[in-house]
Amino acid sequence: MLDEIRQQPSALERTLKTELPRAERFRKRLIENPPRFIVLAARGTSDNAALFGRYLIEITTGVPVSLAAPSILTLYNASVSLEDALVVAISQSGESTDTNFVLERAKASGAVTVGITNEANSTTANMADHVFLVRAGKEKSVAATKTYTGQLLSMYLLAYALGAPIRPDSLKRIPEWAHAALKLEPEIAARAGRYRFMDHAVVVGRGLNYSNAFEFALKMMETCYVVAERFSSADFLHGPIAMVEPSFPMFLFAPPGVTWPSIQEMLQKLESLKAETLVITDKSNHAALTVAKHVVAVPVKLAQKGEAVEEIYTPIPYIIPAQLFAAHLAAEKGLDPDKPRTLQKVTRTL
Amino acid sequence: MLDEIRQQPSALERTLKTELPRAERFRKRLIENPPRFIVLAARGTSDNAALFGRYLIEITTGVPVSLAAPSILTLYNASVSLEDALVVAISQSGESTDTNFVLERAKASGAVTVGITNEANSTTANMADHVFLVRAGKEKSVAATKTYTGQLLSMYLLAYALGAPIRPDSLKRIPEWAHAALKLEPEIAARAGRYRFMDHAVVVGRGLNYSNAFEFALKMMETCYVVAERFSSADFLHGPIAMVEPSFPMFLFAPPGVTWPSIQEMLQKLESLKAETLVITDKSNHAALTVAKHVVAVPVKLAQKGEAVEEIYTPIPYIIPAQLFAAHLAAEKGLDPDKPRTLQKVTRTL
Repeated sequence: MLDEIRQQPSALERTLKTELPRAERFRKRLIENPPRFIVLAARGTSDNAALFGRYLIEITTGVPVSLAAPSILTLYNASVSLEDALVVAISQSGESTDTNFVLERAKASGAVTVGITNEANSTTANMADHVFLVRAGKEKSVAATKTYTGQLLSMYLLAYALGAPIRPDSLKRIPEWAHAALKLEPEIAARAGRYRFMDHAVVVGRGLNYSNAFEFALKMMETCYVVAERFSSADFLHGPIAMVEPSFPMFLFAPPGVTWPSIQEMLQKLESLKAETLVITDKSNHAALTVAKHVVAVPVKLAQKGEAVEEIYTPIPYIIPAQLFAAHLAAEKGLDPDKPRTLQKVTRTL
Repeated sequence: MLDEIRQQPSALERTLKTELPRAERFRKRLIENPPRFIVLAARGTSDNAALFGRYLIEITTGVPVSLAAPSILTLYNASVSLEDALVVAISQSGESTDTNFVLERAKASGAVTVGITNEANSTTANMADHVFLVRAGKEKSVAATKTYTGQLLSMYLLAYALGAPIRPDSLKRIPEWAHAALKLEPEIAARAGRYRFMDHAVVVGRGLNYSNAFEFALKMMETCYVVAERFSSADFLHGPIAMVEPSFPMFLFAPPGVTWPSIQEMLQKLESLKAETLVITDKSNHAALTVAKHVVAVPVKLAQKGEAVEEIYTPIPYIIPAQLFAAHLAAEKGLDPDKPRTLQKVTRTL
């Protein structure tokens, strides 16, 4: 898992090299035939990437997006009307049974289909009309890391193809930001010991970092067996905050930008409840550097002077310290993050 | 909370009486102008009802449904293209700031709007083109119960208005099934003691009962401060199942019908992991009565002989034992479920 976490900058660079030109070509086709709406189908970590895609695409293109509920097709055998939709299947292995079932049904109903996968020779890649490959190399660890960031990158490429005002030049800097995030490893390794006896936690993210809350929590569940919940700061206030007592472990993604006021408000509330807060941010969000008990700051300013705040590019660099944390916490707990109990690499569900 | 749980059969009956004729009228209008897709906007318990609505509407009508991510409009100020959509705001108080913001923006972009609320004189009711009222009477407990089942009922009415093959005669039996579920109270009260020291749990539901997993978990978080996660049986297999160790508390909704094989498979897996399982089912699902360690069976056959399996009508009767469980577990833990720490009845978020 640690090896694969460290491979992310080169995996992202490799993916951009071949897939950005593909996105350029797809963009030309989509401009002539824009979809009325988009459906993203996935499970597990890939579904967390889909959740990011949902926010990114609606925010940057205004095309409505929904996340498929596969059982509606696989178990209830419903005929959902998808003829003018773009249906996107995301699967690391390309062999996720229910995701492929959604793809198949979408194709039959006349939807344009896209497959996003790490495996060029997979069912997903062979079935979809258009393919974006995640060029992460074979992922051996059961806990997905490099394919998650690769899938996030694919979401930027898909949004770009849909006409989003995303600059290819900014995308090309993502590997460099991922590299900066990896420099946090010694710091994270040193921090993990404090959480040795943590058996539950809540992760909060909002907007474009909401999916990172899901992914961080999933990594802690899979590799550390921590009962880790995940909420948006808004949803957390609608009930679950009642769980918070002194010392309750809370992890928050705190990028600069439009979500910061709500995260800041939550941090102040959590402070008054004496929760144990750890914030993931970067050097450009000065306010976040002082407000939480524990701060992990990616050592690069993601919001550059004179540019608009680039919150949009925070999710990939921000998930990396979270992945490192899960891997090092597993080690502290005496667990092997590559072989979580009960799990296999490819899960087939219907 | 217990009083309000017990009021549900009469609240449901009252709601049906005035709102079913309203659904009949709305159905005539919608048949002439069917929406291309549907967006459901809500927070907290209302959002759990929206999750049910998503499954119910896609399964019974084939119209694609997405759950709104309010921050995309409230924080990112995106222009999501909704002109041919039906946008539905669900809010107990009718004063949920972000839900109403989505409604306002939808209206401005030309969408047809629906409000579902317990308060006839609220912002939601006044703003929406069409209103379905939940006639639950004033809800005083912070933990929503009777408005949740009222909102589930509204989802049936909305699906019916959209042309779903739902029989009004079946809807009229829901209050009777709710009444049968309430008879479980002494049994549930006796069971709660066993869970006195539980501090985390997982609730599993699938398809039409997936939203009940969210709602049961939310009730345990709010009133018992149990860190309660919620998953579909498929998602749970994609990682989180690694958390399960001997004695790990698992609650599962197990209706008869198309989701049963996947729940049964999960129960067998959990059995091999020595988890502590409690299943909520009804008298018609014979297999479920023997497979779990602990079984709560609504004392009525929801699938009648000679009829198709009526899984579609299980969510309201099935959530009632879960509500009772949360209220009685709170009492066992010495907590007041009507006044959870940190929470107010109306939460305003943006």
